[in-house]
Amino acid sequence: MRDPVELAAAYLEVPSVTGDEAALARLVGEHLDAAGLRVEVVAGCVVARNHGGDSSATLLVGHLDTVPGELPVAVDELVLRGRGAVDMKAGLAVAVALACSEPSVPVTVVAYPGEEGPITGNGLAHLVAERPELLAGARGVLLEPTGGFLELGCQGVVRATLRLRGRRAHVARAWMGRNAIDRVGEALGTLRALERREPQIGPVRYREAIEVVGVRGGVAWNVVPDLVEIDVSYRFAPDLDAARARQRLEEAVRPVMDDGDDLEVAEAVPGAVSDLGRFGALRSGAFGVRAKLGWTDVAQLVAAGVPAVNFGPGDPELAHTDQEMVEVAEVRHVAQALWRWLHA
Amino acid sequence: MRDPVELAAAYLEVPSVTGDEAALARLVGEHLDAAGLRVEVVAGCVVARNHGGDSSATLLVGHLDTVPGELPVAVDELVLRGRGAVDMKAGLAVAVALACSEPSVPVTVVAYPGEEGPITGNGLAHLVAERPELLAGARGVLLEPTGGFLELGCQGVVRATLRLRGRRAHVARAWMGRNAIDRVGEALGTLRALERREPQIGPVRYREAIEVVGVRGGVAWNVVPDLVEIDVSYRFAPDLDAARARQRLEEAVRPVMDDGDDLEVAEAVPGAVSDLGRFGALRSGAFGVRAKLGWTDVAQLVAAGVPAVNFGPGDPELAHTDQEMVEVAEVRHVAQALWRWLHA
Repeated sequence: MRDPVELAAAYLEVPSVTGDEAALARLVGEHLDAAGLRVEVVAGCVVARNHGGDSSATLLVGHLDTVPGELPVAVDELVLRGRGAVDMKAGLAVAVALACSEPSVPVTVVAYPGEEGPITGNGLAHLVAERPELLAGARGVLLEPTGGFLELGCQGVVRATLRLRGRRAHVARAWMGRNAIDRVGEALGTLRALERREPQIGPVRYREAIEVVGVRGGVAWNVVPDLVEIDVSYRFAPDLDAARARQRLEEAVRPVMDDGDDLEVAEAVPGAVSDLGRFGALRSGAFGVRAKLGWTDVAQLVAAGVPAVNFGPGDPELAHTDQEMVEVAEVRHVAQALWRWLHA
Repeated sequence: MRDPVELAAAYLEVPSVTGDEAALARLVGEHLDAAGLRVEVVAGCVVARNHGGDSSATLLVGHLDTVPGELPVAVDELVLRGRGAVDMKAGLAVAVALACSEPSVPVTVVAYPGEEGPITGNGLAHLVAERPELLAGARGVLLEPTGGFLELGCQGVVRATLRLRGRRAHVARAWMGRNAIDRVGEALGTLRALERREPQIGPVRYREAIEVVGVRGGVAWNVVPDLVEIDVSYRFAPDLDAARARQRLEEAVRPVMDDGDDLEVAEAVPGAVSDLGRFGALRSGAFGVRAKLGWTDVAQLVAAGVPAVNFGPGDPELAHTDQEMVEVAEVRHVAQALWRWLHA
């Protein structure tokens, strides 16, 4: 098999902060083209296939971009260091290495830009919209860092802002107003009381998170404030769809809302459940099986009709940190596990 | 007596937003000079005396500046409208009119800039620092709008920011962090439980206000926040000095503070008590007597050794609003009451 570590080292040398992925896209495309795959570039995504459109294909998917913040690249026989080592140039290198090693099954590599920015710039979303047939396949692996664990599905996200209102007054005559900030305690208590569900779905247990991630209020030192805004993030397990999760949050805060208050839902994106039936042989090569508690593009793959899981090298706790590093052995282990599964 | 309404109408025609008071200062100085007073300008303050330094003088004090926001000037036989009509060109005009009417007692007029901005730009504070002897006197009236009531003293102010800390984490792994915003409810409850004192001091009752006037926290939608800041305004009755008021707030919040938290006191300025003995004859000319619940420059006069009260035309509720207007009859009533008191 082509060495994924060598490819990962090469990719680390090419900065690819979100919005500036073209150079890395070219290099990835060259590697795939040189190995004889058909390469197309659609909406900045590099799509490479060793088949002419086989609906039984396996999709190997990863993003090209990294968060900002250059880090020195350092490669030795044990570890790879540098921006994107974890998230996710090592995973991308594994996908390319597998496809370049003449697998005897139909494989499609998708390397896309814009994952670390807002969803409007997400290359995979554009690819789904423009050329959905390129994503036809029987199963997909998103090679985001999972530390070599098989991480199933992903949780959905509701992002909402609760606006509680009051009535302005001068603080020296505070009783003439209603302090909106004084209402925060009750709202926080209600959110704290909302159950964090932990449903078991197949072999894994999801774990919801409901967090107040922002609070803003205040006019001036001498003014009783008439508005406070509370940002709530609800990561919900994928047994709920986005509409039901949104409704759950709305019902929870309704008792603390008065006339004039509102809950603005900025985003409600569904999670996904992985159909483990397609990935049984991968399970034995993984360090374990667990639920993906964050949101990943597995949700887009599943929504596009492709059963998918998260499986890649690198400790997700190191993603976006200045300590990004991945072990050489783990990169090779993940590549071997995927190779065996592809040909099982 | 010189007509204060005519002077007020003239002052309304000269915009004097904080920082841009020179034109109005010139006009006020000309009026006082033309009436034969000795006029000096110190740190932007116009100081005019009909005496050579009499420690029994009465100080008539008002600020030149207004908040921003020009308003059309309209004057008829009933009301004066325009920016500063209430706060406090009518009061300033009363002071100038009294001094220009050949009072038979020693009078000092102080017209100062920078009252509506931060205390660092307050002209009266600069005058106290540079030429305290100009403020020598037996009694002072600050002609801020009181609606013709005699308002005694003023409350002090503590402005403080409580910082509560937590530990950052990704929201999908919220249990690895500590959400600082979740601590806001307890802090608000503690502040709500703190007694708002209503001490009787002489003939009036003060009424404290403790208000959370600002709250800020949040890093990003996917981050459990590690810091929240809570701005607290404590308007305290003048039976406490600033140090004791500050201590009272510190003791109240200490039970909710952990290691790493802090309470930063941005400002702790004392209030003042008016010695009513010097103002008995003014009481009969006022619509009533009550405590001043806001902070005013009466505190600076009292701190400079001059017993002082608030007494001026205009409804303080209209100050800083676009509805600023003052009744002609009230302006004349206040001027007459002061004239009789000066000569009692």
